[in-house]
Amino acid sequence: MEGGAAASTPAALPYYVAFSQLLGLTLVAMTGAWLGLYRGGIAWESDLQFNAHPLCMVIGLVFLQGDALLVYRVFRNEAKRTTKVLHGLLHIFALVIALVGLVAVFDYHRKKGYADLYSLHSWCGILVFVLCFVQWLVGFSFFLFPGAPFSLRSRYRPQHIFFGATIFLLSVGTALLGLKEALLFNLGDKYSAFEPEGVLANVLGLLLACFGGAVLYILTRADWKRPSQAEEQALSMDFKTLTEGDSPGSQ
Amino acid sequence: MEGGAAASTPAALPYYVAFSQLLGLTLVAMTGAWLGLYRGGIAWESDLQFNAHPLCMVIGLVFLQGDALLVYRVFRNEAKRTTKVLHGLLHIFALVIALVGLVAVFDYHRKKGYADLYSLHSWCGILVFVLCFVQWLVGFSFFLFPGAPFSLRSRYRPQHIFFGATIFLLSVGTALLGLKEALLFNLGDKYSAFEPEGVLANVLGLLLACFGGAVLYILTRADWKRPSQAEEQALSMDFKTLTEGDSPGSQ
Repeated sequence: MEGGAAASTPAALPYYVAFSQLLGLTLVAMTGAWLGLYRGGIAWESDLQFNAHPLCMVIGLVFLQGDALLVYRVFRNEAKRTTKVLHGLLHIFALVIALVGLVAVFDYHRKKGYADLYSLHSWCGILVFVLCFVQWLVGFSFFLFPGAPFSLRSRYRPQHIFFGATIFLLSVGTALLGLKEALLFNLGDKYSAFEPEGVLANVLGLLLACFGGAVLYILTRADWKRPSQAEEQALSMDFKTLTEGDSPGSQ
Repeated sequence: MEGGAAASTPAALPYYVAFSQLLGLTLVAMTGAWLGLYRGGIAWESDLQFNAHPLCMVIGLVFLQGDALLVYRVFRNEAKRTTKVLHGLLHIFALVIALVGLVAVFDYHRKKGYADLYSLHSWCGILVFVLCFVQWLVGFSFFLFPGAPFSLRSRYRPQHIFFGATIFLLSVGTALLGLKEALLFNLGDKYSAFEPEGVLANVLGLLLACFGGAVLYILTRADWKRPSQAEEQALSMDFKTLTEGDSPGSQ
């Protein structure tokens, strides 16, 4: 635990990551099963266009976004730049898939003549999408685009991590609100009769919350944080001497 | 920042705590305003009994539970035992108020002949209540009841903190689901016409999410953590020598 380049992976970490992935994949499969079994499946040019929305959001803003946060725990011994690029790419994939999901619901509303953006789910959803986009842009400018001073990076890093985790949790909460909305719209009074669709969707909701919890646990375990590597420490020192001579400890 | 008994309060912390309290109180006031203005107010022996449920849950499981988590950041220079007792007491108050809220909704359902525990909101709610209760019992046995070995306490502490924060976030998520359920049941199609009640409740939902975010931010800022005090360090050392000689660093 003395740091350095040869730091090994904590023994329990792979099991927790595997569990989180099992949860995440079950989540995606179950969303597909719900839409296929009870909502008629997915098609872009019909009333089934709406169904692209929940599937895209669960894949993009929940599963892929969650996995993007775990990248620094999983690839702990790779070069930091490679891991950063993977983190940024996963977030781009998540955003693009979420954008398809957004287009699906707005297009469906337009064709049906339904109102847009009146519900708490839609307000939270738009907030999540905008925050994700802003977080990506700011993260890119600070950490991938060259030129941000070392002191600024080390000052912004904790904020980036906090807001990343918070936006992810808000995504999970928004998905829960959307699921609930779909259930109440589609099942109505049948929901209280313990219809199979209602029970399946409730289990899906619990799985969503569990996936959020699992990602948060892996992310916050202090002894599972990525160790800073010798090569980076050396680079940081070089960078520091090139910039105004400040240190990350000074924040 | 060298630790020790005379550690001062970080300059920005009081402002963030004040902001969180302002959010929390606005949340409670707004829940009351929503129920008073649009839902007919609160009374135990009538149809208005249901309305005791959201108010109790927002006060107990959101506001008080959130504040119980902040106790260690706010009372950072008091004796640890006093702070622990306050933390435990706030959680008891939260649980008792939540129990009143639970009784209100089950009693209302019984009188009306409605089904219980079919919705995702109710599943999450029961889960939150049971987890809160178990977390309190385990926390009490480890940290307040004398006798738990020092090594066990320091091993359990990070788990207690993680699950405390997670249960709080799940409470916020459950409140959002409940709010959404109430809106769809009561407003129906009027929700999409941007009725004042719908807009007020959406803002209430966003405030709930913001309060959750604010508490999480204060809780996770590394430089705002409670410093371990000289008296506790001495006590811990005494305790360590009395027990099997293990150290918190060995976990």
